Amino acid sequence: MADNSSQTPAVNIKDGASYAPMGQSEKVVEPEQFGFSVAFLDHGHIHGQTNGLLQAGATLRYVYDSDPKRLAAFCEKYPQAMVATSFEQILADQSTKLVASAAIPNLRADIGIRVMQAGKDYFTDKAPFTTLEQLAAVKAVVEQTSQIYAVYYAERLHNEAAWKAGELIAQGAIGRVLQVINLAPHRLAKDTRPDWFFDKQQYGGILTDIGSHQVEQFLTYAGVSNAQINFARASNMNNADKPELEDFGEISMTADNGASFYTRVDWFTPQGQATWGDGRTFIIGTAGNIECRKYNDVARQAPASKVFLTNAEGEQEIDCLGQSSFPYFGQLILDCINRTDNAMTQSHVFKAAELSLLAQQMADNT
Amino acid sequence: MADNSSQTPAVNIKDGASYAPMGQSEKVVEPEQFGFSVAFLDHGHIHGQTNGLLQAGATLRYVYDSDPKRLAAFCEKYPQAMVATSFEQILADQSTKLVASAAIPNLRADIGIRVMQAGKDYFTDKAPFTTLEQLAAVKAVVEQTSQIYAVYYAERLHNEAAWKAGELIAQGAIGRVLQVINLAPHRLAKDTRPDWFFDKQQYGGILTDIGSHQVEQFLTYAGVSNAQINFARASNMNNADKPELEDFGEISMTADNGASFYTRVDWFTPQGQATWGDGRTFIIGTAGNIECRKYNDVARQAPASKVFLTNAEGEQEIDCLGQSSFPYFGQLILDCINRTDNAMTQSHVFKAAELSLLAQQMADNT
Repeated sequence: MADNSSQTPAVNIKDGASYAPMGQSEKVVEPEQFGFSVAFLDHGHIHGQTNGLLQAGATLRYVYDSDPKRLAAFCEKYPQAMVATSFEQILADQSTKLVASAAIPNLRADIGIRVMQAGKDYFTDKAPFTTLEQLAAVKAVVEQTSQIYAVYYAERLHNEAAWKAGELIAQGAIGRVLQVINLAPHRLAKDTRPDWFFDKQQYGGILTDIGSHQVEQFLTYAGVSNAQINFARASNMNNADKPELEDFGEISMTADNGASFYTRVDWFTPQGQATWGDGRTFIIGTAGNIECRKYNDVARQAPASKVFLTNAEGEQEIDCLGQSSFPYFGQLILDCINRTDNAMTQSHVFKAAELSLLAQQMADNT
Repeated sequence: MADNSSQTPAVNIKDGASYAPMGQSEKVVEPEQFGFSVAFLDHGHIHGQTNGLLQAGATLRYVYDSDPKRLAAFCEKYPQAMVATSFEQILADQSTKLVASAAIPNLRADIGIRVMQAGKDYFTDKAPFTTLEQLAAVKAVVEQTSQIYAVYYAERLHNEAAWKAGELIAQGAIGRVLQVINLAPHRLAKDTRPDWFFDKQQYGGILTDIGSHQVEQFLTYAGVSNAQINFARASNMNNADKPELEDFGEISMTADNGASFYTRVDWFTPQGQATWGDGRTFIIGTAGNIECRKYNDVARQAPASKVFLTNAEGEQEIDCLGQSSFPYFGQLILDCINRTDNAMTQSHVFKAAELSLLAQQMADNT
């Protein structure tokens, strides 16, 4: 293991579509020990994915995209990347062990299948699938190839407060988790979005997309392996000019272990909000509760990443901003090397997506 | 109208079961102009009801209760009250225009019917009913007598931040309301509760009880006259020693106007919480959003009553503690005098209760 001497700027939260946090580096590999390449830069999340891997010590090899402008912007930010002239070049590169990708959502599964069939692991932006058929196809290829299909569920994996909440729960700070509520407003920034963003067949619906983050957090915090969907809704409430946009969604679930989950996802972040969204998580347990203010402490601080812990000992404000090394990325690299699943089990990855897709299906049918 | 010269202490939030806020007095009547009496002191909310009426200028006449200890405590706090030797004495008192009451919940409707049939208006603690049959019976008597059956939905009527939120919405500060979420944790304080508190037939279930507050807020903030219940749950998650206690509940609704509502109600306020509950309201609109921290600003201030308003102009923290005269009480007194319904329409009172009862029924049947 390498040491942790390299420090990068603690925080770099960009407003709007791109969210590419930078954490404290804790490198789990030596330079050149673990190579990854990047392909399909359709969503700005690719910067967060790349930052996370680099800070954990991975070595960036190739980048591929069909759009020269996006490619140039990526190369300016990551000058070490070599430009691949085709996706196939990356698939053939022996030193590329993992391919990170943020393609248009309905293309992500097919790209992942090609990556895995080329003997590499895959790290896609969420949502990982837009249909249950894609999920089934990917499951089969994972089974055949034993490759990893990892998902950038950034709202927990790349958020200090969200990660800290998981640590506190694991330490027993609030007892057994009874309920998780996620409020996930996002800024629409309508004029900056590509066409696919407003085409439901391509983005998959608001519950499939933003919802998958929220379900993943529920499964993690409440230790859930399966759940029943009680209610789901996806609507266009105030954007008639973009008829296929769902600007509002909600899901209620009850887990097999009895834990409750509710989330509201939306594109209604007001113009005057200091960050792209005032995301919150409320977790109640038998012995206490946690609130995460994930990006914003409204009217007080932005950016912010705070945990409020209340239990028998009292109320505590824990400032998490810039305090995390985002351990997921190092764990993922080590999983790729050691063929383990410490970062996140494959069944957890799939279950979060499956429940989101089922919720979307329920919402679409009502 | 009387002037507003009398000032009472701004805040007196007691922890635990009793919550009896004191506001800035704005008296709408002269002394002796509007007499009320108090009967059945089973819940501590009666102090909040009495405070609200007194500060709006009403004159306290009689008090009745079968428990000498409770009666003595009330008389110590309100020495102007004359002790009635029977409830009938109050019903016969010509100068009593309104009877305020906080009886065991399943008795509230019958008491109200007797009050109205005696030609007086009634002001009961919530929940106003524990069954739909009681609601139907009361509706019929209201129809016959034209008396008022008012309900102390304190979590809006007697909370500065909650009231302020309604004013901001009416001013258009967040555009059209799309969703209301209420998180309503309460401290169980198990050892201090009477037996009826743990007897479902008497208290009616958690959605009937605490839920009715939350539904009332939804109807008000989102301008809703009716709604469909999507999902409701009421459970005992961690109090096996009190099998009829429901310590957790949740409701999802969609209003006829499309607005969404979700509430979680529970008895899991941790020991170390500075107040009896960290109640929150989140309201999103087409042009902004509001958060109410109704009793507590966790890890920062307690008691507290704050509104956080975000819209195109930016993010704003509005401290409401001690800033309200709680206008509901004065409006109610004037409604009783003038036979108007400015404080709250009777259909709104009934609809909030009806939807809570229907949610409880749905939860009980699943």
